[in-house]
Amino acid sequence: MKIIEKVAEMNEASCENRKKGLKISLVPTMGYLHDGHISLVKIARANSDIVVLSNFVNPTQFGPNEDYNRYPRDIARDNKICKESGVDIVFAPSVNEMYSKDESIWVYEDKLSKVLCGKSRPNHFRGVCTVVSKLFNIIQPDIAVFGMKDYQQLRIIERMVENLKYPISILRGPIVREKDGLAMSSRNKYLNCEERKNATTIFSSLEDAKNKILNGEKNLEKLKYDIELRISQSGGKIDYIEFMDAENLTPMTNLTAPFALLIAIAAFYGNTRLIDNLIVRL
Amino acid sequence: MKIIEKVAEMNEASCENRKKGLKISLVPTMGYLHDGHISLVKIARANSDIVVLSNFVNPTQFGPNEDYNRYPRDIARDNKICKESGVDIVFAPSVNEMYSKDESIWVYEDKLSKVLCGKSRPNHFRGVCTVVSKLFNIIQPDIAVFGMKDYQQLRIIERMVENLKYPISILRGPIVREKDGLAMSSRNKYLNCEERKNATTIFSSLEDAKNKILNGEKNLEKLKYDIELRISQSGGKIDYIEFMDAENLTPMTNLTAPFALLIAIAAFYGNTRLIDNLIVRL
Repeated sequence: MKIIEKVAEMNEASCENRKKGLKISLVPTMGYLHDGHISLVKIARANSDIVVLSNFVNPTQFGPNEDYNRYPRDIARDNKICKESGVDIVFAPSVNEMYSKDESIWVYEDKLSKVLCGKSRPNHFRGVCTVVSKLFNIIQPDIAVFGMKDYQQLRIIERMVENLKYPISILRGPIVREKDGLAMSSRNKYLNCEERKNATTIFSSLEDAKNKILNGEKNLEKLKYDIELRISQSGGKIDYIEFMDAENLTPMTNLTAPFALLIAIAAFYGNTRLIDNLIVRL
Repeated sequence: MKIIEKVAEMNEASCENRKKGLKISLVPTMGYLHDGHISLVKIARANSDIVVLSNFVNPTQFGPNEDYNRYPRDIARDNKICKESGVDIVFAPSVNEMYSKDESIWVYEDKLSKVLCGKSRPNHFRGVCTVVSKLFNIIQPDIAVFGMKDYQQLRIIERMVENLKYPISILRGPIVREKDGLAMSSRNKYLNCEERKNATTIFSSLEDAKNKILNGEKNLEKLKYDIELRISQSGGKIDYIEFMDAENLTPMTNLTAPFALLIAIAAFYGNTRLIDNLIVRL
């Protein structure tokens, strides 16, 4: 496994691999890898010849009062996991390698990014689109794999690829969960013992809503209220609970089949903001 | 010479050429080709194996009251010129091929685009950056050639390539002029006989300013006033006359060597807005 820190070297490696006719996949991460990331590597591994995992905590997608500085990092452990999971190249650039002092170009999305996390995290998705553009241009992958936990991010990147005509296939990685249902996230590390236990309510309330819908419940206000109640009672502070069209991220007002309904939640347990979601198809 | 109208076909052709190890160059144009464009093709031809010329009048870089609809088009004539000039592939997509109905991703620049043409044409450079990103992603060139008449556009694209890490070399094409000095432009066609004659004042006043500077004139206010006077007396209506650092497009306040000074002018003759510029190095 190769570890590359320089943009020019990474681009050269990709050019060489492309010339050989090898199919390149990219798994973009901010490191502190867990089983969710590993599942993305497996999908990449199964669908390409060369798996590149980028490990870069991207400053421009954090707000001024967010956790950029304390975001967990452990690159030695990450590299070990990558090697064991079948990654061919880890791309781990410095901030100065990715951003120059004359930085003035941004890639942004102006529809899908206005709701859900985009509402409470202004400029977050501008940072995401910009850094993913950079990664695409440097690494020139045929495939990129994104996890469905960050579903809004996934939809925005899919839109970016389509609009900007990147010749890249986006593959979706299903959410990977702890045994008790909590969606895996590097930020779970912030939770204390009790918060960690209570946070499972996010997923159980999602599942509960799904079951009610499949059993015929059509009242979205009632479903939303039930989730709100359960999360509040478990000590969570709700940022949003939304029922949306999974394609366009527009609010879903009634449930007439066929639909793909996204139920998305962001909630704080202590100071830690967690997100989770679930798609119901009917 | 191949003429390609579809994004997928263009991307495939480039992939094939890249696999063969051929060097691809791109000359992005809005068509209605003149000797200025041909000079860019020659530079591309000399520096690559496959010359792609894109011919696309990009709607998103025109303002609501600008000349998108009446912008001159003559694709048959353009294709003939391309063939004679040694273009290998003309990429001439429709608007629907380049923009989908779900368009929500934009690439923009937020420093260099705030001055000069960016001031009087809001969103112009956002349209330029977005369409050039698309062209880069579809055509995957090793080289792209941009003319220096649109100097601000050139600097913004150079910045975009650097910031977004496109593995593309930008080559600069010197301004090509009519015998009497008028910079070649597809928009010159709009000028009536008298406007056409008077518009030569733009370049002669640029040259005059340059000569005065090389002869020791340091008073930028005076130089600006002289240009203003000459253009007004020739019937031109000034949009801007600016003296700027040619690198960062920041206002130049005094002339201490070494410098690369950009003198940039936009002026209307009749309803036609013309731009021109000149770089003075000391």
